[in-house]
Amino acid sequence: MAVGSGILPELHPVAGVRLGVASAGIKKPGRLDLVVMDIAAGSAVAAVFTKNAFCAAPVQLAKQHLAAAAPRYLLVNTGNANAGTGAQGLERAGATCDRLAELAGVSRAQVLPFSTGVIGEPLPVDKITAALPDALADLRADGWLRAAQGIMTTDTRPKAASVQLELDGKRVSITGISKGAGMIKPNMATMLGYVATDANVNGALLQRCIERAVNRSFNRITIDGDTSTNDACVLVATGAAGNAPIDGEQHPSFAAFYAALEQVFVELAHAIIRDGEGATKFVAVEVAGGSDEAECVQVAYTVAESPLVKTALFASDPNWGRILAAIGRAGLADLDVSRISVTINGVLIAENGGRSPHYTEQQGIEAMAPEEITIAIALGRGAAQATVWTTDLSHDYVTINAEYRT
Amino acid sequence: MAVGSGILPELHPVAGVRLGVASAGIKKPGRLDLVVMDIAAGSAVAAVFTKNAFCAAPVQLAKQHLAAAAPRYLLVNTGNANAGTGAQGLERAGATCDRLAELAGVSRAQVLPFSTGVIGEPLPVDKITAALPDALADLRADGWLRAAQGIMTTDTRPKAASVQLELDGKRVSITGISKGAGMIKPNMATMLGYVATDANVNGALLQRCIERAVNRSFNRITIDGDTSTNDACVLVATGAAGNAPIDGEQHPSFAAFYAALEQVFVELAHAIIRDGEGATKFVAVEVAGGSDEAECVQVAYTVAESPLVKTALFASDPNWGRILAAIGRAGLADLDVSRISVTINGVLIAENGGRSPHYTEQQGIEAMAPEEITIAIALGRGAAQATVWTTDLSHDYVTINAEYRT
Repeated sequence: MAVGSGILPELHPVAGVRLGVASAGIKKPGRLDLVVMDIAAGSAVAAVFTKNAFCAAPVQLAKQHLAAAAPRYLLVNTGNANAGTGAQGLERAGATCDRLAELAGVSRAQVLPFSTGVIGEPLPVDKITAALPDALADLRADGWLRAAQGIMTTDTRPKAASVQLELDGKRVSITGISKGAGMIKPNMATMLGYVATDANVNGALLQRCIERAVNRSFNRITIDGDTSTNDACVLVATGAAGNAPIDGEQHPSFAAFYAALEQVFVELAHAIIRDGEGATKFVAVEVAGGSDEAECVQVAYTVAESPLVKTALFASDPNWGRILAAIGRAGLADLDVSRISVTINGVLIAENGGRSPHYTEQQGIEAMAPEEITIAIALGRGAAQATVWTTDLSHDYVTINAEYRT
Repeated sequence: MAVGSGILPELHPVAGVRLGVASAGIKKPGRLDLVVMDIAAGSAVAAVFTKNAFCAAPVQLAKQHLAAAAPRYLLVNTGNANAGTGAQGLERAGATCDRLAELAGVSRAQVLPFSTGVIGEPLPVDKITAALPDALADLRADGWLRAAQGIMTTDTRPKAASVQLELDGKRVSITGISKGAGMIKPNMATMLGYVATDANVNGALLQRCIERAVNRSFNRITIDGDTSTNDACVLVATGAAGNAPIDGEQHPSFAAFYAALEQVFVELAHAIIRDGEGATKFVAVEVAGGSDEAECVQVAYTVAESPLVKTALFASDPNWGRILAAIGRAGLADLDVSRISVTINGVLIAENGGRSPHYTEQQGIEAMAPEEITIAIALGRGAAQATVWTTDLSHDYVTINAEYRT
């Protein structure tokens, strides 16, 4: 199941970036499971990675490589996460980077490795290195859609977003892809997101851009609360568009560039939720009136991750008591429940600590019927706000995850 | 579904306590849904309640009454939680106490009200007061089993525990009942637990006993992470056994009494897990080697509440990577994953940050097959430990909670 049409927009090529895809047969023969991204020399590259203490070998290695050199290639495999694999996991990730570096004529540190799939199995290095020439032969500027397909695991459809804007009279493109359908509560980045632009942006600024955009997109979604061992998100700026270099937040082009960039990140994050494992609903939990953003996020995640709220969403049941109970257990100090109100798709359901006197069950049933649900919670104790996006909890979620390895 | 036989032990009457049950037709006609406990004058009564900020009207009122007078009656209804009901909820809870006080010839503050069921519906006061005479007429010392049945909601079977011991040559009984199968992550107490003893125990000490015992039983279980609005646990000591008053932890009878008491609490908490909504597994998550108990509890709950770990348990799939991923995201500072080991039902699965070299998939399959699973996690950074008990996440959990109100 998935929410919405999943129809993708036109994916604008990004000058200076080419993508190639191949089938290495890592988990299933014939499936696209290997993606290589070729990044022009001189590009700025920024990245964020999972905060899970059991972070995967490729995450550890990518961080090292990124600190040592300017990346020229991203190497992504699905079907095997190379996580929980100890010292040999690092060796195997390194071996795939070595081979790609050799074939492409760059240094090992200029290759960033990424893996996603089953945790704890040894990475099949031979299968990956054998397929690398195919992936390199496939490199092309319009390879974004196939790359989006190549990084899918339990995803039912590819995820991509793309916008164009003008900076200094130059047309600039921003295009990105993402994947992920389970083990989704990104903390710093999502389980594989790649965004590139041909805008000319200073490297340090690019890092600030990715951190801010991730905090408003991938770091605000949850499917099951399980932060992955392999989350990683990369932002590339090739500079090939020829705009005057954007070197700080005061630059006249920065605001327009950042707004377009955040739009791409948010669309990619939403696409992950719409394709969440077993998802039948796309749910925004908007919390306003908090003392600070952190407590709004805390309440939003407590509601978004409550199995009882999620099963009620699956049933399209306006069981708002479960929402109140989740707010009440979110751990906010001195929470005055008499100031809280809850609205579902515009229908005021609860206020003053209880059911709104004007609310009828029929209104609630109608509010919960659509595929897209907005739960708006007003805390009445400040001006901060935050939104978290999530899915419902359906039978298909249980089926997918009970049968994942079989 | 439920785990284990559910066969109850002999439930020893507790001198000074009588229980009566009736059918008030609150949610379904003919179902036992009203329980009254009569407590002899002079008994000590201790209680703990939910920390959910949206705590129910009866919880608020029971706290007030407990502070004002020595309780003589507990009044419990199922089918309606009287939570999220604002000011009229308090009025309605008070009205049921008034009527019972009038019938029994005590003051209103000597009645403690408790409710469990759907959140947000007005409490049907008339149905409850109409059935109160039946419940009072039914009062008897051997009413524990029927009372355990009378407080059930989505529970599939009654939960009770009972032990006897000798103190000062006097035979002392400790008997308790509990209920709860969903919205279970108690914080201070579980959704309705009642334990009584005829031991003579000082009131202040009794309060310390219930807090300590709850922290090692009800406050260490989770089914879905959803702390209820109505959790409450009461411990009564009538003193009718005639032992020399236990007035402090140094008293020679205290250790034996407390050990027996904790056993009853743990059995009642385990019974809730065994009957968890949709449960097919009874799972102990034992975390050792932590710097302090709090971080052990944190890791244990993160593993116990991970939907991915829970669906793997449902599938009897030794997908240990999900356990590592949950440990890694539990938020412990400076966690050295190379020191962590994970054992399932005695089989060493992971050590040194990855799969144990001696582990085979066949061992894992055998370890995950039984109904009772112990996941033992050694953090290797201290001497503290904690255990949390939980269930798997099955299709039946989704079905039960998607259809709860229909």
